[in-house]
Amino acid sequence: MKLKIKNFNWHAGKPVVFLNDKTAKRMNVFVDDRVAITSKTKVYAIVDIFPKLVKQDEIGVSHELARILKLRTGVVVEVSVSEMSDASFLIKKKINGEELSQKELDLIISEIVHNNLTEAEIAFFTAAEKINGMNFEETISLTKAMIKTGARLKFKGKYVADKHCIGGIAGNRTTPITVAICASVGLILPKTSSRAITSASGTADVIETISEVELPLKKIIQVVNKTGACLAWGGSLGLAPSDDKIIQVERLLNLDIEPQLLASVMAKKISAGAKHILIDIPFGRGAKVRDLEKAKSLGRKFLRIAKRFDLKMKVTYTDGTQPVGNGFGPVLEMLDIIKVFQNDGPQDLREKSIYLATELIKLCGIKDANRKASEALASGKAYEKFKEIINAQNGKDNFDEKIKNLKLGKIVRVIPVEKSGQIVRISNKGINSLCRILGTPETISAGVYLHKHLEKVKKGEPLLTLYAESQVKMKDALKFIKEFKPIEIE
Amino acid sequence: MKLKIKNFNWHAGKPVVFLNDKTAKRMNVFVDDRVAITSKTKVYAIVDIFPKLVKQDEIGVSHELARILKLRTGVVVEVSVSEMSDASFLIKKKINGEELSQKELDLIISEIVHNNLTEAEIAFFTAAEKINGMNFEETISLTKAMIKTGARLKFKGKYVADKHCIGGIAGNRTTPITVAICASVGLILPKTSSRAITSASGTADVIETISEVELPLKKIIQVVNKTGACLAWGGSLGLAPSDDKIIQVERLLNLDIEPQLLASVMAKKISAGAKHILIDIPFGRGAKVRDLEKAKSLGRKFLRIAKRFDLKMKVTYTDGTQPVGNGFGPVLEMLDIIKVFQNDGPQDLREKSIYLATELIKLCGIKDANRKASEALASGKAYEKFKEIINAQNGKDNFDEKIKNLKLGKIVRVIPVEKSGQIVRISNKGINSLCRILGTPETISAGVYLHKHLEKVKKGEPLLTLYAESQVKMKDALKFIKEFKPIEIE
Repeated sequence: MKLKIKNFNWHAGKPVVFLNDKTAKRMNVFVDDRVAITSKTKVYAIVDIFPKLVKQDEIGVSHELARILKLRTGVVVEVSVSEMSDASFLIKKKINGEELSQKELDLIISEIVHNNLTEAEIAFFTAAEKINGMNFEETISLTKAMIKTGARLKFKGKYVADKHCIGGIAGNRTTPITVAICASVGLILPKTSSRAITSASGTADVIETISEVELPLKKIIQVVNKTGACLAWGGSLGLAPSDDKIIQVERLLNLDIEPQLLASVMAKKISAGAKHILIDIPFGRGAKVRDLEKAKSLGRKFLRIAKRFDLKMKVTYTDGTQPVGNGFGPVLEMLDIIKVFQNDGPQDLREKSIYLATELIKLCGIKDANRKASEALASGKAYEKFKEIINAQNGKDNFDEKIKNLKLGKIVRVIPVEKSGQIVRISNKGINSLCRILGTPETISAGVYLHKHLEKVKKGEPLLTLYAESQVKMKDALKFIKEFKPIEIE
Repeated sequence: MKLKIKNFNWHAGKPVVFLNDKTAKRMNVFVDDRVAITSKTKVYAIVDIFPKLVKQDEIGVSHELARILKLRTGVVVEVSVSEMSDASFLIKKKINGEELSQKELDLIISEIVHNNLTEAEIAFFTAAEKINGMNFEETISLTKAMIKTGARLKFKGKYVADKHCIGGIAGNRTTPITVAICASVGLILPKTSSRAITSASGTADVIETISEVELPLKKIIQVVNKTGACLAWGGSLGLAPSDDKIIQVERLLNLDIEPQLLASVMAKKISAGAKHILIDIPFGRGAKVRDLEKAKSLGRKFLRIAKRFDLKMKVTYTDGTQPVGNGFGPVLEMLDIIKVFQNDGPQDLREKSIYLATELIKLCGIKDANRKASEALASGKAYEKFKEIINAQNGKDNFDEKIKNLKLGKIVRVIPVEKSGQIVRISNKGINSLCRILGTPETISAGVYLHKHLEKVKKGEPLLTLYAESQVKMKDALKFIKEFKPIEIE
């Protein structure tokens, strides 16, 4: 059917078209069906039906589609009901328990990147990955497919390195410190991080309290070439871009899909140009990985993939039973980091950051790694490197000003220890939820300061300090503490 | 966050809200995330981001939402990021291979009906049903859940009956004939049918060539009470409404999910008030069910469920290796039906319709079923009943006029037999695709007339007559025949 383009310049996040209800009826398409739009090129889009916005001879297109089609309002295109894409057949194959080849996974991932699969189809794919599993060769193929469909960075130097931590632990903001230490001893770290999904804040949210983090690829290369590292948000860079779309779907059920996790981490690191990779797997009650055995099983899989890609890798297994650091929430975590750089911060965060930096430096074949890492931090060399990176990302030397402007929530409430005893449990999930209730990550000044870890405490000592910008949120948070009891004392 | 309602009165087919991009950023929500909207009641909706259509303090709502919320433009509501619904946890449970209880399936199905699950979440659910399977008790629970969440009809009389045919066979339009025969001997048949999904036309499409089929529930009851039967479209009636949403998702991959099929057929029949149910399972090469063994395995499952619900059921296993009837396409199939009523139609369609009617009449405990069915058709009694039903649905006696107005496509092409021999295969799928290429079901006058079945033919005899309203489509159809060869002669 010939229809006239009407460009709504609507950022739908995916290629969507609007059809008049009568047009839809004539074409026999329904909401969320797929149509093919042919002009110079052929693209697929998802249908929405909108009786008033478009006329019967029109097709309303989103910003994304107008860009892909390079068409303006008024141009006539051929619109037809789209058959199932080949990728759908392959997803069905995986649902039926068959193995997928490199070529087949290439097609699926490419179709995901090009928006030719709906979220429901991606859900079918990930469900099949989860339930039927993927063998080693499929995981390798998936990793390769994810790399191929994205941008790739390349840096000069022997020591291009990266780190990744399997999430789930509250706080645990080692990345800025570890990256600064490693860069200060000569490693190259094109580090990209994510924003919070379910946690109080992600590394990108924390860095954003003092720095630009949404850097274009060109700027990243510039910053890394100048300072040896970056601390950027990975979301818009186009490194393994299929990952964001798959994660968006997995999130719906909070699914952990192991082959997807393996392929996604590896594809991102390889795309960023890293040759030396440190994977940290915190384990224990309350962590994503429950015990050392499971952690080691995951670790072995990472190592096997790394070997295939000819990369050096070290996997560390660390304590995941309690939060790391004292502050939780973007500003609070940044304040912890600054204090560590000033040799005054939470001891657990400091030690873990040095440990990870040591392992990564060692992996690069540099001798005396532990002493070098400790000295870099103690001497202020790492802090200088951190300032340098942030200033480069901001494009001006405003680090001190940014730090000075960090402010905590106006509404403050100290929660004292209720009874003397031993703290036996601090729930990572509970601390994260508490922060979200107080307003993080949107309200960067909100969050929780944890005065104690798993230790002996006395009644009346401060246990938590809560920060918020809204009385309502503070009230909700107090209610949550009462009901959920994120900290247990015995 | 407090936002002002802006009602776009947009029929999105699901509850969608529009947020300004800045508002979305402040709330930390992305396209396709879920938000909860609280006013007098709390509902969930899917987010789309639309910078220009709504202001920062506004939330644009679709028609569906405005109706559920009973709110007008300008009213202020509380909008918050919605956590995973309980149903999502249960879907995750099924993905992890656990069994779901009645209560749990009730919640999932209710959330599907109330639009609280996204299509991707429904895809996760159906994928888990498909891969992990569902045991008998789960299938029973699913059936009950589907019934509970929909409307239910009740008719007086001992012989409330229904039939269902597992699809996949081209033509096979027995329903109007069987229903008319059965109603003419005293059965009550509140028959609802679907439109075509992938076939040339569905029963509802065929009936619609001469009749209203989108009848409200009230009208259906009226028509059935008056004439003993109806031939309506089931889509908008709200009988087992979860089914439509699940089918919309299954369709994406053309998945056949057995527990879903069983529950869906049974729930619809029970909701329509049927106590005597005939299930026809065509089997053979080219049918949905490949062989008699598989057909019987499916049939046994139907019978077991029927027993649990205290229903009388007969399962018939019929030949599914070739199309039934001569005409394929809405008008062509209606013409076949009329001819059968006038004792002049395709013999295979006539015989199968009488056979199914006989079995259903027998199932109701009426003696001499075969003679009664044959006589009803031969005497014209069934035809009279059919006219009566159609006139009741139309609300006026315009049957003859409607029949007179049936027209076939202007562009006609006869395809002769290429070589003498035996027809060894007529592909159901091929015939259906050919019809779709010619324009069915949208173009009701388009389609295929099949002059031969699996029989001996001579070169030059007419094999197919094609009907279309567009030269382009006719050309595409001829190309398809050349490439695909839907009919094989040896």
